[in-house]
Amino acid sequence: MGAGNLNTINGVSQNMPQIQSLSDVRALLQDLPASDSKAQNAAQEREPQLTKPPGSLGRLEEISEWLAAWQGRHPPSVENTKVVVFAGNHGVTAKGVSAFPAEVTVQMVANFKGGGAAINQLSRVAGAKLEVVALELDNPTKDFTESPAMGVAECAAAIQRGMDVVEDGMDALCIGEMGIGNTTSAAAICHAIYGGDAGDWTGPGTGVEGDALAAKARVVADGVAFHKDAKDGLEILRCLGGRELAAMAGAIIAARLKRVPVVLDGYVAGAAAATLKAVHPGALDHCIAGHQSAEPGHIRLLDKMEMQPLLNLGMRLGEASGAAVALNILKCAAACHAGMATFGEAGVSDKD
Amino acid sequence: MGAGNLNTINGVSQNMPQIQSLSDVRALLQDLPASDSKAQNAAQEREPQLTKPPGSLGRLEEISEWLAAWQGRHPPSVENTKVVVFAGNHGVTAKGVSAFPAEVTVQMVANFKGGGAAINQLSRVAGAKLEVVALELDNPTKDFTESPAMGVAECAAAIQRGMDVVEDGMDALCIGEMGIGNTTSAAAICHAIYGGDAGDWTGPGTGVEGDALAAKARVVADGVAFHKDAKDGLEILRCLGGRELAAMAGAIIAARLKRVPVVLDGYVAGAAAATLKAVHPGALDHCIAGHQSAEPGHIRLLDKMEMQPLLNLGMRLGEASGAAVALNILKCAAACHAGMATFGEAGVSDKD
Repeated sequence: MGAGNLNTINGVSQNMPQIQSLSDVRALLQDLPASDSKAQNAAQEREPQLTKPPGSLGRLEEISEWLAAWQGRHPPSVENTKVVVFAGNHGVTAKGVSAFPAEVTVQMVANFKGGGAAINQLSRVAGAKLEVVALELDNPTKDFTESPAMGVAECAAAIQRGMDVVEDGMDALCIGEMGIGNTTSAAAICHAIYGGDAGDWTGPGTGVEGDALAAKARVVADGVAFHKDAKDGLEILRCLGGRELAAMAGAIIAARLKRVPVVLDGYVAGAAAATLKAVHPGALDHCIAGHQSAEPGHIRLLDKMEMQPLLNLGMRLGEASGAAVALNILKCAAACHAGMATFGEAGVSDKD
Repeated sequence: MGAGNLNTINGVSQNMPQIQSLSDVRALLQDLPASDSKAQNAAQEREPQLTKPPGSLGRLEEISEWLAAWQGRHPPSVENTKVVVFAGNHGVTAKGVSAFPAEVTVQMVANFKGGGAAINQLSRVAGAKLEVVALELDNPTKDFTESPAMGVAECAAAIQRGMDVVEDGMDALCIGEMGIGNTTSAAAICHAIYGGDAGDWTGPGTGVEGDALAAKARVVADGVAFHKDAKDGLEILRCLGGRELAAMAGAIIAARLKRVPVVLDGYVAGAAAATLKAVHPGALDHCIAGHQSAEPGHIRLLDKMEMQPLLNLGMRLGEASGAAVALNILKCAAACHAGMATFGEAGVSDKD
């Protein structure tokens, strides 16, 4: 690794490592910080004292414990939060895999910056900062049916860019993407990691159907066959992914190093995350699935990743939209855990 | 009806009717205002112009249309909102149907007023006002296995009290309850309206299990058998319900008259609502199920009511807690619909 080697204080990294190769990333993945059992124990001790029947807040209770464990402090809070949308362009769009033209990626980035997209409204509702990271939109990745989507340095640079968005002291990070063609990349990554039929993983994305959907599945199958020798999750990410997927993977790693719990958006964010889990099974323990996308491969992917989505609202927009909606649920969980009175404080009789 | 007869301006009631008998309520239910098709059409026209693939916001799109239709204006907004928790005590607790003693109802009302309950935190996260309405807590309803829970005047007064919480100009109302023993009432109401076995509708509530749960189901069966001649949903509400259930029914009716969409909480709120739907099938068209409670009768009830809950987080607390969490989803929906740019405004290319 480069100059900015990993320094830790109390187990939390202060400077982000500099990524120059995928081996640097592999090394990080083999040495990820564990959860904070002291903070987690404190959450487990407080929860049954709160003025409600045990377990009656359901997943909100699990979420507060998980937040404490991965923020490394008790009580957890969800105040200082950020939504990051990574945008990239994809050479595979030349194969006609999307219902929208590729220039929409650039146009939507302008829309994000102008405040007109769904994610602008959803970030505001959740009280989160919004950051948009456009990754060389005028230089699409290569068509993955003909060559690796990215060279090693290109992929490492995108991972690094993703790592750089994670700031010290953040309470939670929502990650998502924009990139015409990227559900094709996501499908190829899932097919490469988990097998099955290409068609199992291929869905409408922005709205392809019928013959175009069948053609999209063939593109996915062709890409995976072409890169059948990709040796691990990170090589799969480099060969079949895109810059925004690599950047999401980088953000997930950096968040772990800085003790920031992550809310994953839908299918494309999930596929990017899956490449890390393929390298190290515990790599996503600090991540939660914000929602189940209507993109049909996503429920299959969530099953493989053993993740239970928080929401199922039939959303399939990307842009971190599902993650941003789910961020409100994290806020509810932390607010209850931190703010409720105990039976003793409130003078409420406990269970008979 | 009494002095404050229903006056309408543009189809919206300005003064609430005064309820003196259940016949007054029946009359209101037969003459409920319809949704506003002009506002609904405006929402339907705007939605496909917004910068996203059609349908990609899933239920958020349905919710904005529903909000417009029932608020009677376009665009809809979810800013001025209120959560109301109605509290009541139940004579049937003498039969040992709850894991917590009956004095907990009073203690929890004090906890609500002191800011220490889950609903205080959840209302704050959702930006909603919180109102707590304690209904004669020192005067429990009668044990419904031995007599009607409420007399006619008593039930009408509770319905009236619920109607009074709905203010002009509110964007949405979340309703829920607190009342030791009230899942027994809810189960009895559902069993009376929808049939089946008493055990199908009886669940742990605050935490009864084993023999106590079987005994609770027998109390439900006994109550329903005793009141088998209750002639309609409102009589079922009076005989098997409680003041907080009657008040929730009143709030639902008043919200319809004042064009305020309602978010229902869990099983007990759902059972109160079901009594209105039993009288008039369209009575709940302005209501949405905030969540699916872990109380096992609730999913069965939602199926009977043909309502799709917004959330399924394993919550079973009551207090309007699930409705308050769901209110954040309504805010997301309205914010996207009202705030997003159109394809034309943003200069984004539409689908090929």
